[in-house]
Amino acid sequence: MELIDGKFIADTIKKEIAQSVEQMVAEGKKRPHLAAILVGHDGGSETYVAHKVKACEQCGFESTLIRYEDDVTEAELLAAIQRLNEDESVDGFIVQLPLPRHISEQKIIEAIDYRKDVDGFHPINVGRMSIGLPCYLSATPAGIIELLGRYNINTKGANCVVLGRSNIVGKPVASLMMQKHPPGDATVTVCHSATKNLKEICAQADIIIAALGSPGFVKEDMVKPGAVIIDVGTTRVPDATRKSGFRLSGDVDFENVAEKCSYITPVPGGVGPMTIVSLMKNTLLAAQHAIY
Amino acid sequence: MELIDGKFIADTIKKEIAQSVEQMVAEGKKRPHLAAILVGHDGGSETYVAHKVKACEQCGFESTLIRYEDDVTEAELLAAIQRLNEDESVDGFIVQLPLPRHISEQKIIEAIDYRKDVDGFHPINVGRMSIGLPCYLSATPAGIIELLGRYNINTKGANCVVLGRSNIVGKPVASLMMQKHPPGDATVTVCHSATKNLKEICAQADIIIAALGSPGFVKEDMVKPGAVIIDVGTTRVPDATRKSGFRLSGDVDFENVAEKCSYITPVPGGVGPMTIVSLMKNTLLAAQHAIY
Repeated sequence: MELIDGKFIADTIKKEIAQSVEQMVAEGKKRPHLAAILVGHDGGSETYVAHKVKACEQCGFESTLIRYEDDVTEAELLAAIQRLNEDESVDGFIVQLPLPRHISEQKIIEAIDYRKDVDGFHPINVGRMSIGLPCYLSATPAGIIELLGRYNINTKGANCVVLGRSNIVGKPVASLMMQKHPPGDATVTVCHSATKNLKEICAQADIIIAALGSPGFVKEDMVKPGAVIIDVGTTRVPDATRKSGFRLSGDVDFENVAEKCSYITPVPGGVGPMTIVSLMKNTLLAAQHAIY
Repeated sequence: MELIDGKFIADTIKKEIAQSVEQMVAEGKKRPHLAAILVGHDGGSETYVAHKVKACEQCGFESTLIRYEDDVTEAELLAAIQRLNEDESVDGFIVQLPLPRHISEQKIIEAIDYRKDVDGFHPINVGRMSIGLPCYLSATPAGIIELLGRYNINTKGANCVVLGRSNIVGKPVASLMMQKHPPGDATVTVCHSATKNLKEICAQADIIIAALGSPGFVKEDMVKPGAVIIDVGTTRVPDATRKSGFRLSGDVDFENVAEKCSYITPVPGGVGPMTIVSLMKNTLLAAQHAIY
C-alpha cells in the first residue's frame, strides 16, 4: 500500500505556482489577488479560510479577507459580491460556505461573476466542466484528479465508484472522471442514500472516491484488494485527547482498509490540502485570463 | 414484456400542451413561438426539423423556419442568432445540429441566449440541470425521464446503466437519473468506449439507456431478465426494401432482447417522438416565463 501524500503534492504545486507568480512579477505584471468573504465564526470555516489566506502567502498572491457577522443580510452580501465583481484589482473570489440559513447560498453563488468564480460553483462553470470546455474546475474534484495524475494511477477504463452526489464533490468528480481525456476515461458509478447494493458495487471498484461525510463508512469488506481509495470525508469527531476537542475523520475505516488497497489518501493530509491548491490554481488562471 | 409507446405518450402530451396554449390564447396571451435555424440539406436534419414544425402546429404554436445553405459563414449564423435573441416575438429557438465543419457548434450554442435555449444545450442550462435547479432540460434526456415517469417505472435505487457519454444524451441523462427527485434517484453507471467489462455491467442493470449510435449493440446476453430497456439509437441503415432506401435502427437487438425485458422502447416510435415533445414543453415554459 502506498500513501497518497496530498500535503507533499500540494506543497510541490504551491512552489510551482509561486514560481509562475515570480515570473509574472518579473515581467511587470501584478500578483494574482484572491478575495474571500467569511460570514460568522463557524470553526470549520474559520480554519478553511485561514488555510486559504496562508496558501495565498505561500503562492505569492495578494489576498483580502472580508468578514461579516452572522446577521448580515442577503442584500448586503449581494452588494459586497457586486463590488468584488467590479473590482479590477481582484482576479477571483470565494464566499466561504456554509452561510446562515436566512441567506440563499444558490443566489449568492449565481451572483458571482463566473469569470471570477474560482470555486467553480457557478452554473456556467459546472456546465462547461460537464461539456468538457475550459472552465474553473470545482476545487475538491480538481484536487482529486490532480492527485490521481501525479501518482500516475491508471484511470482509463477503470471502474470508479463515487460515494455521494453532492454538488461540490460527488457530481463534479463523477463528471471529471468520465471525461475522455486523462486522468479520467473511467467507467463511473455514482452511489448515494438510495443505492441498494452499495457493498457489492464498492467491492467491484478499482477506484473508490468516498464523499459522504460519514466517518469510517467504507469498511474492509467493501474494498477489492489493490483498489485505489480517495477519502474526501472530513468530519469533526469529538476527541477528548486533542487540545481542540476533536479530530478529523474520513469516510474510510483507514486502519483496516489501508492494508488491502494499493493507494489511499489519509485524513487529514490527503484531499484537503489539494482542495486549497486547486483554488490557488484557479486564481492563477484568473490572473492570467487563461480561461475567460 | 410491455412496449413503451413513445408515440402515444408524445401525442398525449402534445394535446396537454395544446390545451394550455388555447387557455393562454383565451386569456389574451400570444401563442408560444419556436424558431429553428436549418443549415444545408442533410436528410436527417430535414426530417427532424419537419417533425418539429409539425409538432408546433399540433401544439398550437407559431413556428418559423430559417434556412441557410451549407456555405453560410459562422459570422452570418451568429448574426442570425443575435437577431433571434433580440426578437421579442420569439420565445425559444434551436439551431439544428450537426453544422458544416467550418462552423463551431459550441460557439453557436453559446451564442444563444440561455433564456431562449429550448434545446437545453447552453452551459448555463447544463450546469443548472446538474445542480438540480430549474432550467431547460436537454430534450432527449427529458423525454426519457418523462417516459419512465408516465409508465410508473421504479427508478429509486435502481441500477441504471447509461451507454454513451455524449453531451446531448449520455451525460445529461446520467445527471437526471441520479438527481434526488423522482423519476431519478437511481444508482447510475456511465459506460463508454473505454469501458472494459461492459457486458458484465449491463447484465447487472435494472435499467439500460443505450445511446451509442451503434445498431443492435445491446444483445440478449447483456440484459438481465426483467430489465427496462430505453433505446436512444437512431442510425440510418441501408434497406433496399424501403422506398426511402434506409430504415432507422436502434442500439438494441430488439427482436432478441424484447422477450427478456419488462419494458422496452421501439425504434422508431420510442424515444424519438419524446425528444420533440420535450422541445415543445420547453417552448411552452419559455412563453410562460416559467423558468427565467
